[in-house]
Amino acid sequence: MKFATLQDHTTDGRLLIVSRDLARCVEAGDLAPTLLHALQNWTAVEAALRDRYDALNAGAIEGRPFDPRDCAAPLPRGPQWCDGSAFLNHANLMEQAFGTPPIPDLQTIPLMYQGASDDFLGPHADMPLPSEADGIDFEGEFGVIVDAVPMGSSPRAALDSVRLLVQLNDWSLRALGPREMRTGFGFLQAKPSTSFAPVAVTPDELGDAWRDGRVQLELHVEWNGEHFGHPHGGEMHFGFGELIAHAARTRRLSAGTIIGTGTVSNASRAAGSACIAERRVIEMVDDGAARTAFMRFGDRVRMEARGPGAAAGAGPFGVIEQRVVAAGNAQ
Amino acid sequence: MKFATLQDHTTDGRLLIVSRDLARCVEAGDLAPTLLHALQNWTAVEAALRDRYDALNAGAIEGRPFDPRDCAAPLPRGPQWCDGSAFLNHANLMEQAFGTPPIPDLQTIPLMYQGASDDFLGPHADMPLPSEADGIDFEGEFGVIVDAVPMGSSPRAALDSVRLLVQLNDWSLRALGPREMRTGFGFLQAKPSTSFAPVAVTPDELGDAWRDGRVQLELHVEWNGEHFGHPHGGEMHFGFGELIAHAARTRRLSAGTIIGTGTVSNASRAAGSACIAERRVIEMVDDGAARTAFMRFGDRVRMEARGPGAAAGAGPFGVIEQRVVAAGNAQ
Repeated sequence: MKFATLQDHTTDGRLLIVSRDLARCVEAGDLAPTLLHALQNWTAVEAALRDRYDALNAGAIEGRPFDPRDCAAPLPRGPQWCDGSAFLNHANLMEQAFGTPPIPDLQTIPLMYQGASDDFLGPHADMPLPSEADGIDFEGEFGVIVDAVPMGSSPRAALDSVRLLVQLNDWSLRALGPREMRTGFGFLQAKPSTSFAPVAVTPDELGDAWRDGRVQLELHVEWNGEHFGHPHGGEMHFGFGELIAHAARTRRLSAGTIIGTGTVSNASRAAGSACIAERRVIEMVDDGAARTAFMRFGDRVRMEARGPGAAAGAGPFGVIEQRVVAAGNAQ
Repeated sequence: MKFATLQDHTTDGRLLIVSRDLARCVEAGDLAPTLLHALQNWTAVEAALRDRYDALNAGAIEGRPFDPRDCAAPLPRGPQWCDGSAFLNHANLMEQAFGTPPIPDLQTIPLMYQGASDDFLGPHADMPLPSEADGIDFEGEFGVIVDAVPMGSSPRAALDSVRLLVQLNDWSLRALGPREMRTGFGFLQAKPSTSFAPVAVTPDELGDAWRDGRVQLELHVEWNGEHFGHPHGGEMHFGFGELIAHAARTRRLSAGTIIGTGTVSNASRAAGSACIAERRVIEMVDDGAARTAFMRFGDRVRMEARGPGAAAGAGPFGVIEQRVVAAGNAQ
């Protein structure tokens, strides 16, 4: 199944079912008013949602054209947002970029920070930020939305809790991050609102591209219309089972909790990068200085997951396409 | 005004108005179904809530006896939870306890971590945790619940956004904290669910004890029935205006966001401590070794804010009284 959330005047928006080809949609508010409600009542509503999804795909329901510009994030707010850093290539490059001390246990214990989950942005929302001097950067990622997870779940049980897959941009302010890391208290000002592609999908929609607890797709990133990278999601050092279990080690997770991969990143330089900070550190290593500046107000970023090679084509999550604006100027 | 939340089968519970002396209460679901709803619609509902509160205090409404054992946290879930470490005496002692590097800018930039806000516990809920080996500790704190705060608010404007004051126990797992600090990603497993005293109060209820953006009350802490400390909330290095503005520097805060003080802590040793880790580091400094162990399953902690000296007496927030239990054994 594929879901989106229609932006309206409410906090949580209205649930839409989207056709497999992302061309059409139909309201589902009579079955579950919001995606969060559906996640909190999954067993009760799943069959009816699937019937309507099947009818939409079969043409038995006409629906209406799907316009991602009408969409909020699939979950405009979530109960919890925990973001990993599961691509070790990214973690290693960031250590060099920030000059921070080596991170302990990088190979054996997932890195994860607690993010804010009260104000997620939709795929075409302007991204308001206070200052270009903060080092504005995008971070292309995949994520999962889980059912309720009991405290102490095993990675295997945790993986079974995955209800939906999502694609996201975990905006970062690079001038603020290293200082917050040195406090030991983690990111707060360095992590403004996170943005999401319009469509959240059940794992079966990915077929073989959902394998080993990883999203086996390339994340294609463009910055101001130019290709920036297309790293592959299969190179995660930890799978989602391990990431979810890490988050649930000392507490339960509420249904609707989102767990992210961290910036998708490949050891092969041919894949490019899904964030500017990586390109900058590669420039520093190769040439002794970073040439690429961070984002300016007015800049645009576009992100879309696609199958590699022969499976290339429009991705299952739709497209994130955002513009950075000075706070107060968002439209 | 004083509010509490009746635990029922729903996530957010039901709003109660509590009399000034905490003896009686009356339902307010017809005015605002939940405390979160009231916070999101404050201007529209405040006058009607205050009329009922006044009528309850005057005896014009009889209400029923108030039993904090029926209560969830005032907000069983919140949009966001950001906890400061605004008592520098605590921050300095923790540096010694953990052997972590000196925290930069401690005097000039608030320390703050992002916490989980999807599963707050009520004042008498058992605290389920997986292992005594994790170093189970309580942390007595005060907090504020704010209205919506725009990105970039000044400390003065931020302070005006304070709607309610709360008292809380920010449970910590001390064996996990230092490693998470060294990753730079901050606390995650080290911070299980946070617990709250039953009653949230508007600032006017504290009279002179709400002054300079600080809660000017002592937080009396007992561990297994023995007095452990009674540090005073006025010794915060940063006031709540500075803490809220810090959280809102690069993002807006949704109505209902909770901002905490961090462990209440005084330079004077006569005040004792509001967490075990502080006592342990003092023992290490004085005697070369910590004698006091962390909590065991079955241990109890009690916390209650009270006026100092002549103003002593039952506090405005009621009492937190919890028992630590092995995960799976919570009642």
